[in-house]
Amino acid sequence: MTEPGGVCVLGAGLIGGSLLRALGPGRAFGWNRSAPTAQAATSAGFAVSTDLPDTLRRAADQDALVVIGVPLPALGAVLDAVAGHAPGAALTDVVSVKGPVLEAVRARGLGARFVGGHPMAGTADSGWSATDPDLFRGAAWVVAADEGADPDTWSLVAGLAADCGARVFASTSAMHDAAVARISHLGHVLAEALALSGGRGGDLALALAAGSFRDGTRVAGTAPDLVRAICEPNRAALLVALDECLADLAAARESLSATHTLGPLVDDGHHARRAYEALVAASTAPVEIIPGAPGWLEALWDAGARGLEVRPGG
Amino acid sequence: MTEPGGVCVLGAGLIGGSLLRALGPGRAFGWNRSAPTAQAATSAGFAVSTDLPDTLRRAADQDALVVIGVPLPALGAVLDAVAGHAPGAALTDVVSVKGPVLEAVRARGLGARFVGGHPMAGTADSGWSATDPDLFRGAAWVVAADEGADPDTWSLVAGLAADCGARVFASTSAMHDAAVARISHLGHVLAEALALSGGRGGDLALALAAGSFRDGTRVAGTAPDLVRAICEPNRAALLVALDECLADLAAARESLSATHTLGPLVDDGHHARRAYEALVAASTAPVEIIPGAPGWLEALWDAGARGLEVRPGG
Repeated sequence: MTEPGGVCVLGAGLIGGSLLRALGPGRAFGWNRSAPTAQAATSAGFAVSTDLPDTLRRAADQDALVVIGVPLPALGAVLDAVAGHAPGAALTDVVSVKGPVLEAVRARGLGARFVGGHPMAGTADSGWSATDPDLFRGAAWVVAADEGADPDTWSLVAGLAADCGARVFASTSAMHDAAVARISHLGHVLAEALALSGGRGGDLALALAAGSFRDGTRVAGTAPDLVRAICEPNRAALLVALDECLADLAAARESLSATHTLGPLVDDGHHARRAYEALVAASTAPVEIIPGAPGWLEALWDAGARGLEVRPGG
Repeated sequence: MTEPGGVCVLGAGLIGGSLLRALGPGRAFGWNRSAPTAQAATSAGFAVSTDLPDTLRRAADQDALVVIGVPLPALGAVLDAVAGHAPGAALTDVVSVKGPVLEAVRARGLGARFVGGHPMAGTADSGWSATDPDLFRGAAWVVAADEGADPDTWSLVAGLAADCGARVFASTSAMHDAAVARISHLGHVLAEALALSGGRGGDLALALAAGSFRDGTRVAGTAPDLVRAICEPNRAALLVALDECLADLAAARESLSATHTLGPLVDDGHHARRAYEALVAASTAPVEIIPGAPGWLEALWDAGARGLEVRPGG
């Protein structure tokens, strides 16, 4: 299913701007708060305005799919404008945390045609100059499958992700947040902790560091503000993952002290890494789901839990 | 300074075997416990016997530099044999932990001509077939600079490392163990913990995992027995690093819960990663040290603490 009236992208930063470029100026238009970015997008042929009400009225007139591509701190103001100027529009977002966005959307009565999304792509760079029409190619794009989701909107959002070359995965917003806390946000925290430990060892330790330290601390090279912006909005799920990890590490520490062995952590971690490698190596065909068919949400949840891509059919 | 009588390598596994091959059969001979490996080395032209007393008597006769290349659990028996058959030989080792080796050597009265070493090279593979004469090229090789070290033996061991193409760093055994706990062993533990957390998220989490998870868990792909053999012998230093890391993570967790921010960990970790990158990028000439000259040990400690390579001169 294609959007009846194109795609309206709110926020032309790295993700929103790349989305505009992936879709092209014939299909996508948008808004950006800052004038220089809007100007850069305009120069590249895109109808990107700095007038949010006007942009939203156009989206409402055209029945465009509205994509919120602003950082979480700006979400509330943008949603207020959506509620004021395009309350009936089909709505999605590309914010990296899903539960808080869903909550903010529902609080403004915009839930009926909202399906959240998260393209798992990005770089340390930002701004229009960093945008890339191929940013999403091959990346995972989670399309939220929450209780009560509108099947037509779900199809629109999954179609948008597929049109950008992404692989579509489905899960509830809560499951998404729990998963990315584990495989992304906790990794940021541990990388910082490992780097800090190496730094405490001074230049001798850093000089002796080899591949495992280089790889294990790579994401600690990300700008601190960006790390905080990525991790902190997902704090509820990150706290769960952190608490489990602290317990695992404390158990290994006690075992090492008392019995001189690290205990089950080494086998358990190795087992999980092997499961990850096996999942990466397996190339399974996407599961076709017919949005709105009986049990379609359960089918999406099942595919997501099995780590399988989905594709809207029917 | 070259060895008066060649190099006697005890243990022809990955490290010992690669050392034999780096030095060549004209300079190096040795021993291996298992007959198939000794046979493989012999077929490659090396005088590698399964008779330890005989090999050590030859080393004593030739005044060869004896290199202990057996895993830590086998160290005691090999040192007993050295004490019995070549107690006056110049002695070094290539075991990944230095304090426990130094202690075992001194306990057998073999400290006078002992200088420990640790070539920081290796792969997940093992056995003669995995050996590589270029294994040490460009790798860091720590040559221990402990109080009371014999300058001539230090020169022999540093010369051996340099002849293998390694970059020589100096530190006390205790400083070495503290450093590698931070930049290697803690990294193994955190990689296992991150992998385990991802695994707890099931196939959804593993399917969404991207570069940061792949890199952060890479060393969890190492065989569990090898991880234990690498980390557990350094447990005193690893416990110190683990305790600090647990405190850092607990503080970040409390901060995230109470104030919704991860606190100083993010800036501190980023700062340490940048220091590591700067050290890697800097290419400073080795510091020349004259073993035995007044203050030579202090000069080695100073260079080590500054993360600088050393080279024996004079």
